[in-house]
Amino acid sequence: MSSRKYVIAALSLASIGANQAIAQSAPSSVAMFGIVDINFRSVKNGDQTIKQVASNGMSPSQFGFRGTEDLGDGLQAGFWLEGAFFPDTGATDPAKFFGRRSTISLAGSFGEVRLGRDQAPGYRNIATFDPFGNVGLGSGLTLVSSLGSGASTLVRTDNAVAYFLPPIMTANCTHAYRECGLYGHISMAAGEGIKGGEYRGGRLGYAVGAVNVAVGMASTKTATTDDFKVKNFGASYDFTQFKLMGLYNESKWGARTHRVLGLGATVPVGQFLLRATMQRADASGVGTDANDARQWAIGSTYSLSKRTSLYGTYGHISNSGAAAFAVGTLPAASLATGKISSGYEFGLRHAF
Amino acid sequence: MSSRKYVIAALSLASIGANQAIAQSAPSSVAMFGIVDINFRSVKNGDQTIKQVASNGMSPSQFGFRGTEDLGDGLQAGFWLEGAFFPDTGATDPAKFFGRRSTISLAGSFGEVRLGRDQAPGYRNIATFDPFGNVGLGSGLTLVSSLGSGASTLVRTDNAVAYFLPPIMTANCTHAYRECGLYGHISMAAGEGIKGGEYRGGRLGYAVGAVNVAVGMASTKTATTDDFKVKNFGASYDFTQFKLMGLYNESKWGARTHRVLGLGATVPVGQFLLRATMQRADASGVGTDANDARQWAIGSTYSLSKRTSLYGTYGHISNSGAAAFAVGTLPAASLATGKISSGYEFGLRHAF
Amino acid sequence: MSSRKYVIAALSLASIGANQAIAQSAPSSVAMFGIVDINFRSVKNGDQTIKQVASNGMSPSQFGFRGTEDLGDGLQAGFWLEGAFFPDTGATDPAKFFGRRSTISLAGSFGEVRLGRDQAPGYRNIATFDPFGNVGLGSGLTLVSSLGSGASTLVRTDNAVAYFLPPIMTANCTHAYRECGLYGHISMAAGEGIKGGEYRGGRLGYAVGAVNVAVGMASTKTATTDDFKVKNFGASYDFTQFKLMGLYNESKWGARTHRVLGLGATVPVGQFLLRATMQRADASGVGTDANDARQWAIGSTYSLSKRTSLYGTYGHISNSGAAAFAVGTLPAASLATGKISSGYEFGLRHAF
Repeated sequence: MSSRKYVIAALSLASIGANQAIAQSAPSSVAMFGIVDINFRSVKNGDQTIKQVASNGMSPSQFGFRGTEDLGDGLQAGFWLEGAFFPDTGATDPAKFFGRRSTISLAGSFGEVRLGRDQAPGYRNIATFDPFGNVGLGSGLTLVSSLGSGASTLVRTDNAVAYFLPPIMTANCTHAYRECGLYGHISMAAGEGIKGGEYRGGRLGYAVGAVNVAVGMASTKTATTDDFKVKNFGASYDFTQFKLMGLYNESKWGARTHRVLGLGATVPVGQFLLRATMQRADASGVGTDANDARQWAIGSTYSLSKRTSLYGTYGHISNSGAAAFAVGTLPAASLATGKISSGYEFGLRHAF
Repeated sequence: MSSRKYVIAALSLASIGANQAIAQSAPSSVAMFGIVDINFRSVKNGDQTIKQVASNGMSPSQFGFRGTEDLGDGLQAGFWLEGAFFPDTGATDPAKFFGRRSTISLAGSFGEVRLGRDQAPGYRNIATFDPFGNVGLGSGLTLVSSLGSGASTLVRTDNAVAYFLPPIMTANCTHAYRECGLYGHISMAAGEGIKGGEYRGGRLGYAVGAVNVAVGMASTKTATTDDFKVKNFGASYDFTQFKLMGLYNESKWGARTHRVLGLGATVPVGQFLLRATMQRADASGVGTDANDARQWAIGSTYSLSKRTSLYGTYGHISNSGAAAFAVGTLPAASLATGKISSGYEFGLRHAF
Repeated sequence: MSSRKYVIAALSLASIGANQAIAQSAPSSVAMFGIVDINFRSVKNGDQTIKQVASNGMSPSQFGFRGTEDLGDGLQAGFWLEGAFFPDTGATDPAKFFGRRSTISLAGSFGEVRLGRDQAPGYRNIATFDPFGNVGLGSGLTLVSSLGSGASTLVRTDNAVAYFLPPIMTANCTHAYRECGLYGHISMAAGEGIKGGEYRGGRLGYAVGAVNVAVGMASTKTATTDDFKVKNFGASYDFTQFKLMGLYNESKWGARTHRVLGLGATVPVGQFLLRATMQRADASGVGTDANDARQWAIGSTYSLSKRTSLYGTYGHISNSGAAAFAVGTLPAASLATGKISSGYEFGLRHAF
């Protein structure tokens, strides 16, 4: 095998032609990126056990393209196209290939204006302050409820117009981009006649030194006169030897309220990162008071490199009343109300 | 963040193996390209107004890969895969991911033979001689009709075999590739038993100096004994300070005829490109004589760079009789016959 | 047109931000690859003739991304995402975009562990020892039957865990990767409650000098108590002037057995590679004894380069009893039982 390169280059196309001249204009840079995550998973729902080769125990498998262009005068344009897929079967979302993110941006000293499909500001805290990052059998998102409101905006919104603050107080910042210094963004999504799609939300946070705290709020129009509302607050503190984090999330729709309180920790030990979480979900209103649930999970990742990790997780949910929260996603076994759902998984995650 | 590159390179794959050896042969060059275009759009159809975050006001959002290979002796092989998507939601065409173009070519001094799915020669003039390039609220394609013939070949054809002339009289040519000097191509598409898919068409043009003129003709088999036929003629002249263009398109199916006459202009003013168009559609035959329509649109693009533009457009269509042509595409509001459809949009377009 | 490159590079993303930090970690290399194959095809099934512009006469059209990462200590991680498409129309598999292969691997001196969707070990011999590589009008796969068992594992399996031997006795090996020296792999696929998906299979081969021999075996759970079983044996010998190959494949499901015996040859003559094959299919059990078929095909490829070829193939199948095997894939014409199916195709194949 030779060592020649498939250099991704713009072609002169002198003979094999282009219909639109636009693709043949100025210099460009495009990054291809993705994650493949496959695991062995065993889940017990009530009395039923199912063993699977599953996806997404540590990170959401994804595939995408993104790029930026320097426009001069401190202005930047950019795009981001990112889709989900399930590497255990090769399946993608048939209708929404770029369903994780599909945006165009204009950024400068004023901040960033971003248009398209993206994560909702009312969601970000739920992921940021979960030691399992809302993925796999320990995901804190499992207990969060849309309360049957029909809102499709809990995690992402179509047709959104968002504004992100520019970097503020980010000197010596060790936090992730967009969660650094004083940070925040607001987003409005057009409903376009689809019930449960019209959205307004915002998030404001402060991450300096060992501290990261943030609040999020959102409201979505539904088919009734009641809006579906989300409020949350998250905080983390990095003690170097370990990191503590907590989240409070409140969903409301009419007389119904659903509260989730989570506490978690991560402990780096060499190439291991131990992770633990405890959560409780508390339903109230319209005869749902008894439908509570508790979740706990422990696990660890083991870094083979910055991009490649092995991992293992054990997750456990006990449901009360008519609650039926289940760990992971099960195509073949359903969970009766008030039962226990638990499972373990170990897998391999590779990012490119 | 480091500055390391994700160089797209062929891998030795010494341990992670390839089943087919073919992908491991000779040097190659592949270009990734695309356009993301999102806008704010407000459309009034009759009495109904709908506001959207929409796609494709200035350019059709797209995503693709193309490449060429030099075979020696003046021969070139090439491929082109290009799909449409809607960046406001991340949606793609579920069944036809590469629905905009999917071709393989062999080119040389004899011209180019191109196989697969591509734009139809009977369509190209409709796009070329429209100041809005057949996109957005000013699109001249809106008034063009397939007359209920069931022909699926108005814009693109599946299963096509096309032949393009080689470059002729292209010295000092400032026109776009494939529309330069004496240019032309013919295309035949196999119907494969699907009614409305079997196609024959051709185009011939001449673009030298300030002038560009072209004629197109096409015929498609339908479920009846009548073929669906298209004839068109376009011309443009660039006066440097401004450019004028005109299009005449005639669709015919049995006793029905539909004629569109368009006049347009573009005016470059610094980074602005002002655009204006007027069109009239004239139906005749089988009681459709009164179903006419008129369209006008004005707008401008503003170049932030060669690849990135802001834009705004206002479009207006007045329908007569049973005509119901509407600006843009509206998922939630339908237009009654004989009513006015109008709207404005402003957006951001980025090509990569 | 300028000569600037669209270098696929990781971006600093200083202003247009990334939500997940994982994609911004260590160096990476990713290869984009694909094949586009379009042809003219004429098939006669019984009395019906259909002419098409079709796909995949010489190679399966495909599109993919793959990459590896060196983890140190002789360890390597890798991923492979590969989807099928039909370039004559631009169509993809709506639900399984990466339906040809979607895997993550960990490899080292111990061999390779590979997880995800991939070719089944019980299938590889059917492709390797067919001069037409299981593609187009001469494909040997056409006569191979799943016997109505409902097994979806004849060619590929979802949810597979496979183990490949490391390189053994591969000195001076001129065979393809993974079929070199003493080679083999086993695979187990989780059924996950879907009938016809739970699979166990293995393959062992020996390819040194002019010889390549291999055996394959596989068993799939079905909706009945009978497993669907495959056994096969293939061998090839390269006499330099020509290469001979043979395949025996046996499918079994309950009382039904289906045997295919194939003999083939390839002859390199300059840039031509002549190809010929003869096959017979022999059904037995439950009144199916008479449902036999014979196939023969001849053709040639002509290399314009290592990546680009012209090709032509003629294929012929005669069916007995209730057998109705047809060459190629025909959307519009079906074949009555016991009839002859034959056809020819010539096309262009380009790999990138």
